[in-house]
Amino acid sequence: MPKVTIAQNILAANDTIAQEIQRSLAVCGIRTINIMSSPGAGKTTLLERTIERLRGQLGIGVIEGDVETSADAERIEAAGAETVQINTRGACHLEAHMIRDALAEIELARIELLFVENIGNLGCPAAWNLEEDTRVVVVSTTEGDDKPAKYPQMFAASGVMIVNKLDLLPYVDYDVEKVKRHALAINPHLRIFEMSCRTGAGLDAWCDWLLNFAAEKDEQREA
Amino acid sequence: MPKVTIAQNILAANDTIAQEIQRSLAVCGIRTINIMSSPGAGKTTLLERTIERLRGQLGIGVIEGDVETSADAERIEAAGAETVQINTRGACHLEAHMIRDALAEIELARIELLFVENIGNLGCPAAWNLEEDTRVVVVSTTEGDDKPAKYPQMFAASGVMIVNKLDLLPYVDYDVEKVKRHALAINPHLRIFEMSCRTGAGLDAWCDWLLNFAAEKDEQREA
Repeated sequence: MPKVTIAQNILAANDTIAQEIQRSLAVCGIRTINIMSSPGAGKTTLLERTIERLRGQLGIGVIEGDVETSADAERIEAAGAETVQINTRGACHLEAHMIRDALAEIELARIELLFVENIGNLGCPAAWNLEEDTRVVVVSTTEGDDKPAKYPQMFAASGVMIVNKLDLLPYVDYDVEKVKRHALAINPHLRIFEMSCRTGAGLDAWCDWLLNFAAEKDEQREA
Repeated sequence: MPKVTIAQNILAANDTIAQEIQRSLAVCGIRTINIMSSPGAGKTTLLERTIERLRGQLGIGVIEGDVETSADAERIEAAGAETVQINTRGACHLEAHMIRDALAEIELARIELLFVENIGNLGCPAAWNLEEDTRVVVVSTTEGDDKPAKYPQMFAASGVMIVNKLDLLPYVDYDVEKVKRHALAINPHLRIFEMSCRTGAGLDAWCDWLLNFAAEKDEQREA
């Protein structure tokens, strides 16, 4: 079967930059979450709703990755978070050097939690280490329940899976239990949240988890 | 703004193989269509419904691209078409050498129309020339109406756009006219079909177009 391997030296150079970034962010006590999904699974809406709910409780920054346009960064900024847009002009994933350039534009002193919204793609972003504290993969009930089986690297590389668009479940053929079963078979440590960013269902549990997640770093720093 | 360019010599080598494939297929009078979309927009269901409708009228072959699993090839084969599965084991797009290897497994004498179902990805597949006779991009009403603006290369490189999942339109915020307007601004020659592969709405017009499309080659061959 044909196979394409990304040149190891490119990935190693990426890792070096990612580790430098992680050290700088750790000094500032900032935790980072890399959010990945297919195009249109709801990453930006998830961030909008999350920022609205946590405003005043947590300093949130967002690095917004898109092939083109700054429409998503404008949405996130309107929700109330410090935001920087990266346009990859064709590239299908974010790399560490792009994050480094974006961080130079953010006032880090005001941030406790940094989201990186990756390019909409269930493949390549999983192969690029950004030394994030965790990775979140968002799947939605309208994109078919075969995604963990078809894109296993994405689920193996994530710490959290969000099943979004629960409000559309009555209108589609989608077996949530099958998705959870397949994802957990690939990665038994996956934490799973089910939600509808449109109706708000399930967002409370996710936001509670985020507050705890951000606090973990504070404890590490104080220790 | 950061930019990643795929090495020109890799793309040139791909073009050479693609042109060889195109010459072989032209000799056999086979027309090819490269189908691309986000994961879960409905490429495989579109092919299932298309093959069921055109069975007996047109010899159809399918090269099925997936990162992992042969589930889609099994669905297509069950619908009644000659099918070969390519698993890219991580790669986010199909390349010409993969098509060449797959074609060695297909009995070309029975085929008039060859579909290549690309990896679910709105980015990279647009950059890889397979010397197909046309490209079809499938978007769906559940993935947000900003996709032409955010992934313009995909729409610039396609001859046809299918707007799928019309049956879910009452339950989502999706402006079909906006999608068509944005896509046509990028590519005024785009032919557009609106359909629901689930209910069958709009499939007749698409299948009529395919019959004409396949016949064009026969005329060229006879001329």
